[in-house]
Amino acid sequence: MKVAVGADIGGTSIKAAVVSVLGTLKHDRILPTRSQDTPEDTVTRLADALGGLLLEAARIAGVEPRNIPVGIGCAGLIDTSRGIVQISPNLPHWRDVPLGAMLAERLGSPVLLINDANAFVLGEGRAGAGRGARVLLGLTLGTGVGGGILLDGELFTGVHGWAGEMGHTPLQIDGEKCACGSYGCLEGFVGNREIVLRYMELAGGEPTQILKKFLKDPSEQPTPETLSLAARAGDAPAIESFRQTGRYLGAALAGFVNIFDPDRIVLGGGVAQAGELILKPAREMMEERMMFPQKQHPELCLAALGPHAAVIGASLEALNRVGKNEFSGGA
Amino acid sequence: MKVAVGADIGGTSIKAAVVSVLGTLKHDRILPTRSQDTPEDTVTRLADALGGLLLEAARIAGVEPRNIPVGIGCAGLIDTSRGIVQISPNLPHWRDVPLGAMLAERLGSPVLLINDANAFVLGEGRAGAGRGARVLLGLTLGTGVGGGILLDGELFTGVHGWAGEMGHTPLQIDGEKCACGSYGCLEGFVGNREIVLRYMELAGGEPTQILKKFLKDPSEQPTPETLSLAARAGDAPAIESFRQTGRYLGAALAGFVNIFDPDRIVLGGGVAQAGELILKPAREMMEERMMFPQKQHPELCLAALGPHAAVIGASLEALNRVGKNEFSGGA
Repeated sequence: MKVAVGADIGGTSIKAAVVSVLGTLKHDRILPTRSQDTPEDTVTRLADALGGLLLEAARIAGVEPRNIPVGIGCAGLIDTSRGIVQISPNLPHWRDVPLGAMLAERLGSPVLLINDANAFVLGEGRAGAGRGARVLLGLTLGTGVGGGILLDGELFTGVHGWAGEMGHTPLQIDGEKCACGSYGCLEGFVGNREIVLRYMELAGGEPTQILKKFLKDPSEQPTPETLSLAARAGDAPAIESFRQTGRYLGAALAGFVNIFDPDRIVLGGGVAQAGELILKPAREMMEERMMFPQKQHPELCLAALGPHAAVIGASLEALNRVGKNEFSGGA
Repeated sequence: MKVAVGADIGGTSIKAAVVSVLGTLKHDRILPTRSQDTPEDTVTRLADALGGLLLEAARIAGVEPRNIPVGIGCAGLIDTSRGIVQISPNLPHWRDVPLGAMLAERLGSPVLLINDANAFVLGEGRAGAGRGARVLLGLTLGTGVGGGILLDGELFTGVHGWAGEMGHTPLQIDGEKCACGSYGCLEGFVGNREIVLRYMELAGGEPTQILKKFLKDPSEQPTPETLSLAARAGDAPAIESFRQTGRYLGAALAGFVNIFDPDRIVLGGGVAQAGELILKPAREMMEERMMFPQKQHPELCLAALGPHAAVIGASLEALNRVGKNEFSGGA
């Protein structure tokens, strides 16, 4: 059985696992991201965790660990061909860190470094909800909004490897300043922060009695996850916050549909846990606003692989590149 | 010398020509569109004009007319594989007209039918300002705003052939209603109508003395073309209207850059005649707002093929498909 080792460097935790060529997880580990650490310290911790997984993977595959490819997903601008994390919101101190080469040197295995939302769409496209789509768009909804584009099963990367940043499409050109430096980006309409702000406004400034049942203590800040639970329990402001968020998302999706004429759009990330609460209004708004006949709207669906989609996608893409000499570090 | 016959069905006129495999025009004709005509009447007039050009083309190529491919660009939703004009803003009475088959039957030659902005980007990409680009975006700025995407020299069509409608990306989700049915589309910020409205507001409700010199009589409505002339003669409201238009365009381009990571963007259509008056503010805004390092901004340039870019693009794509059995009508 062909296997790879994959990891996804998130804002608070790093997920890692052994992944089979079918996209199934064999083992999985989780370690804290510690975003203030130096690149060297992070690489040391990451190499320790991945080293253990490489041994497991080698045992399963019956090969030497150095023959097991490693795929890493990381948020931000990633130079895949050189294996460099150029800028990452999760690792704010990092600038042009050659993570691919650093890890390859420690591990002895070939390492592929890709954007985390690109890894997400690769995972869903090859082993999840995007299988069989010809033009697949993937969006990860969380604190940030990431994106990836799969054309006939292959990642569309653009000329520098940065393509797919659909979360930074302007929905209001004189809107609020975004973390990316622009204004009125989609991320600022459907990101976690905005969903909670929208809720607080609708709820009159403080959590409703229903929401309070899902908070550990009164000082806990609401999140899209707790709002999802409250909405399912009938909390009107939570339902309305997701509905409004879905409509903003749908308006943006209509624009992406006009650009890409896709057959499927997959939504992942924490916000997607709200399921039909956000999907239904998004789908309705998308169909209302897209140019194309409504009968031919793309399928809008939730990710199927859960929180490990990017780990799986990075692993499958690493396996895909074995023998092609297209790794970020090592060979 | 390999040649094709191409045509571009515009809002007021149909352009047609013999086009060589190098993208050079050998002959060209122009006929009125007459948007109220029935499809049959339009096909008859078009077939007459194209028939003459086919004879010229056959003479040049030393082959039978039926061996000369025909490429047609037309605004709207085009089903290229079946050769159908589904909806066209230039031909408002037409619904699902099998123009490809109708023309192929009259002419005896294979006919390729594609969206006009797709034809534009094919022309510029293969024989104009887009040559050599890996990821090329093309926008045609006029009454409507069309778009096309060329990846490694090949048209990206999406699943139904409708991709590239970047003019209908929402820049303001609660903005004005657009002809496409959506709200706040890019087209409503940078289309001809908005440029003139912006001018009239800046000029205090009526044409300035400078602009009047370029109008045939006081009742003539300003257009982006006459405003370009006035701006070049120093007309402040005209310059400012183009500057504001350029900034709106640039904000949208920044979003497209984040999505596509392109190496070049080519602007065509009437508005592009304003040249650096619109290009400079657009470029500045794009660089201000895009996520990627400014050193790596894509080249933003004007179309090189003039008003015949779509005729040339449709012809070159028709030539490209000879022997591939990928025409819309005939074989």
